[in-house]
Amino acid sequence: MDLKDLLKDAKKYLDKEIEICGWVRNHRPQKEFGFIALNDGTTQNGIQVVYDTSLDNFSDIAKLLVGCSLKIEGKLVKSEGKDDYEIKASEITLLGSCPEDYPIQPKRHTREFLRENLYLRPRTNLFTAVFRIRSLAAFAIHKFFNENNFVYVHTPIITANDCEGAGEMFQVTTLDLKRVNGKPDYSKDFFGKVASLTVSGQLHVEPFAMNYKKVYTFGPTFRAENSNTKTHASEFWMIEPEMAFTDLNGDMEVMEKMLKYVISYVLENGQEEMQFLDNFVEKGLIDKLTKLVNSKFTRITHEECIKILKESKQKWEFEPEYGEDIAKEHEKYITEYFNGPVFIYDWPKDIKAFYMKQNPDGKTVAAVDLEVPGAGELMGGSQREEDYDKLVKRMEELNMNKDELEWYINLRKFGGCVHSGFGMGFERLLIYITGVDNIRDVIPYPRTPKNCEY
Amino acid sequence: MDLKDLLKDAKKYLDKEIEICGWVRNHRPQKEFGFIALNDGTTQNGIQVVYDTSLDNFSDIAKLLVGCSLKIEGKLVKSEGKDDYEIKASEITLLGSCPEDYPIQPKRHTREFLRENLYLRPRTNLFTAVFRIRSLAAFAIHKFFNENNFVYVHTPIITANDCEGAGEMFQVTTLDLKRVNGKPDYSKDFFGKVASLTVSGQLHVEPFAMNYKKVYTFGPTFRAENSNTKTHASEFWMIEPEMAFTDLNGDMEVMEKMLKYVISYVLENGQEEMQFLDNFVEKGLIDKLTKLVNSKFTRITHEECIKILKESKQKWEFEPEYGEDIAKEHEKYITEYFNGPVFIYDWPKDIKAFYMKQNPDGKTVAAVDLEVPGAGELMGGSQREEDYDKLVKRMEELNMNKDELEWYINLRKFGGCVHSGFGMGFERLLIYITGVDNIRDVIPYPRTPKNCEY
Repeated sequence: MDLKDLLKDAKKYLDKEIEICGWVRNHRPQKEFGFIALNDGTTQNGIQVVYDTSLDNFSDIAKLLVGCSLKIEGKLVKSEGKDDYEIKASEITLLGSCPEDYPIQPKRHTREFLRENLYLRPRTNLFTAVFRIRSLAAFAIHKFFNENNFVYVHTPIITANDCEGAGEMFQVTTLDLKRVNGKPDYSKDFFGKVASLTVSGQLHVEPFAMNYKKVYTFGPTFRAENSNTKTHASEFWMIEPEMAFTDLNGDMEVMEKMLKYVISYVLENGQEEMQFLDNFVEKGLIDKLTKLVNSKFTRITHEECIKILKESKQKWEFEPEYGEDIAKEHEKYITEYFNGPVFIYDWPKDIKAFYMKQNPDGKTVAAVDLEVPGAGELMGGSQREEDYDKLVKRMEELNMNKDELEWYINLRKFGGCVHSGFGMGFERLLIYITGVDNIRDVIPYPRTPKNCEY
Repeated sequence: MDLKDLLKDAKKYLDKEIEICGWVRNHRPQKEFGFIALNDGTTQNGIQVVYDTSLDNFSDIAKLLVGCSLKIEGKLVKSEGKDDYEIKASEITLLGSCPEDYPIQPKRHTREFLRENLYLRPRTNLFTAVFRIRSLAAFAIHKFFNENNFVYVHTPIITANDCEGAGEMFQVTTLDLKRVNGKPDYSKDFFGKVASLTVSGQLHVEPFAMNYKKVYTFGPTFRAENSNTKTHASEFWMIEPEMAFTDLNGDMEVMEKMLKYVISYVLENGQEEMQFLDNFVEKGLIDKLTKLVNSKFTRITHEECIKILKESKQKWEFEPEYGEDIAKEHEKYITEYFNGPVFIYDWPKDIKAFYMKQNPDGKTVAAVDLEVPGAGELMGGSQREEDYDKLVKRMEELNMNKDELEWYINLRKFGGCVHSGFGMGFERLLIYITGVDNIRDVIPYPRTPKNCEY
């Protein structure tokens, strides 16, 4: 049985014969007895197994090293003096041994060392917590959208569209590069044309919103950006909802509701993990998240935001300007100013994407960024331009290829409507929730420039 | 509000003022009144809207074409003579018009035509049903594993491993192919080496099973196979669970339990959709699935299977043979023979993968295929070879590159244990559940050779 189920129903199993398989996380053998910290990975903290010389194989068991897999038969009992449980073993069977030079020992390993042992790092307390939180958060996202009538759409990974600049895209090919002599013949390539890895599912999911009203995509996206920072990865997962009959206010409502839902779910269903991360990664983490769940998100325009920044007595590295983007220091200031998350909306159109709804002022678009204390920009969204002529004109201004996106533009012709959506980088959320500050440490197998191990 | 919520609580909203936005699926204007079949996509069947000359804009509304988006204000009322609801409109607002040459008309379109209009096909009744079932089934899979303590692991899409033969893999590159003159310099490529799109997450998920006990991956996988069949796509989604401390029998238990769970969930939560598919795609579909959920899955060895096939009086196109794979005709026969799903296990080792557990007979491996009536092979799994020496020896026999998979082999050295897993192609399941017989019609944007639109 799973340790998680055993402990959940501990009262039922108390003093009963039980059987658990798991791995030795720590071992303190004494002369007449011994303590094994055992975990089968279904819990964060595992359980203590106590054994003594009544075991036939006591002397062998006393020699067991960290990392071994064991089968434990015994009784679930209350720990002495503590409101906790342990197993009094009547039989311990070695399932798989582990050598002395096993890299994961019960001590503090550097994250760099663990990145070099990616396939073993889930076995540490830190990564056991992080990757279970990742799993819980992913489930919470699906659960939220399912409960709110959203249809989950698997947008394609390989795409012929290239709407955000080819320079940052990975190309997908079956051409034999040794035979490509300066003249790649794409008609002979697998798809008969240039194909790339998607940078966003947003454009592909919009046609589905025009039927199902509410849809979302949650899948891997790719950027071939040569950035070696703590927040950039070449392969990461994105959540992109899209809603018909919804304006920017409705968009912000869903953004806020979703974020609170996911964090509440993780706090409730990952208590041991969150406590571990609060203790060892970011002090006050649980308080930070609880505060967010209970906070009201402020909504201000970009113009109001710049005004506040300009009126502050702050010394800025980058001077805030109307019509321009804001810097990390501004994000930080504005969330501190309002002591909570802030939606900044109605952004200057020149720094935002072509598909965003042009406001009547002719200068701004109905776009929104969510700034969160301690995280910076966590999500971005917009109302989409539903006016066929305005969208086409904007694409012309930006010298975009309209033919390639004819289908997308046509959505405005065939029963178009006010619609909005947003995107959230899943790893950015995980960095915020776990307190782990490097994107490489929230992805099971991170891919970054010159780094594609396994 | 969503139509789904309105109809779920119809009794509460009966004779109340309500507001719904949606699209015109059909329109029958009469002289003094008219009927609009409206759907906002949160339901399969939509709702009938009745209007009459009491509308100020009656004459404009009477001209509305299929595909328009509307806002309806009015009262929810009981339909005359039917146990059903409709909306008596007090106001109808046109949100987005739709031209007469709109491709999706309320008539039967061929699937080929709809494939040429991928971005509009979700708007047909057929694809509305299919892609909602896809969404429901995906959620059911996550829900099943979540309830059973599995951790969801996002295995990488871009990989440096190549365990199933490079010929079938897509290469991922940022090299400028115009500058590759017969000598691709991979040290200058994005990852500094050859990188490809994953064909399976299984090997990558196994290290996580060695910590969490029970894990699964559910993500896109890729095959650059030049096959133009109804069951092959270049990009498809796979579900791959992996369980420590679990032998082949335990594996089969989870396979059976998961399949029944997912199908039950879809039958319960997609009733309108399944009824539509039963009526128009596969007569008896719901019965077929209900029967599966209530059936006991038979378990026979490959040898027993061949014996049954040989003893039958069938005329075979391919003669069944001990030690060889079975053909589609055999799959069909054996599920009919047992009148239900059949697990065939203990396969000849030479036709199965290197990582499968070698049985003591020296001839077979602890592999299993699940054969389902009307679907053929729906899943495949195996107990994994947990013996370090046997695994290495098998890889040597097959001339495999051990260095590349050293990490995988090492899992046997560091607290290894009996473990098993399986894989299920998500689209194969969807073909079975929806009755739609072409994989191109269960994927939002299918990718096949020479076909990568959008």
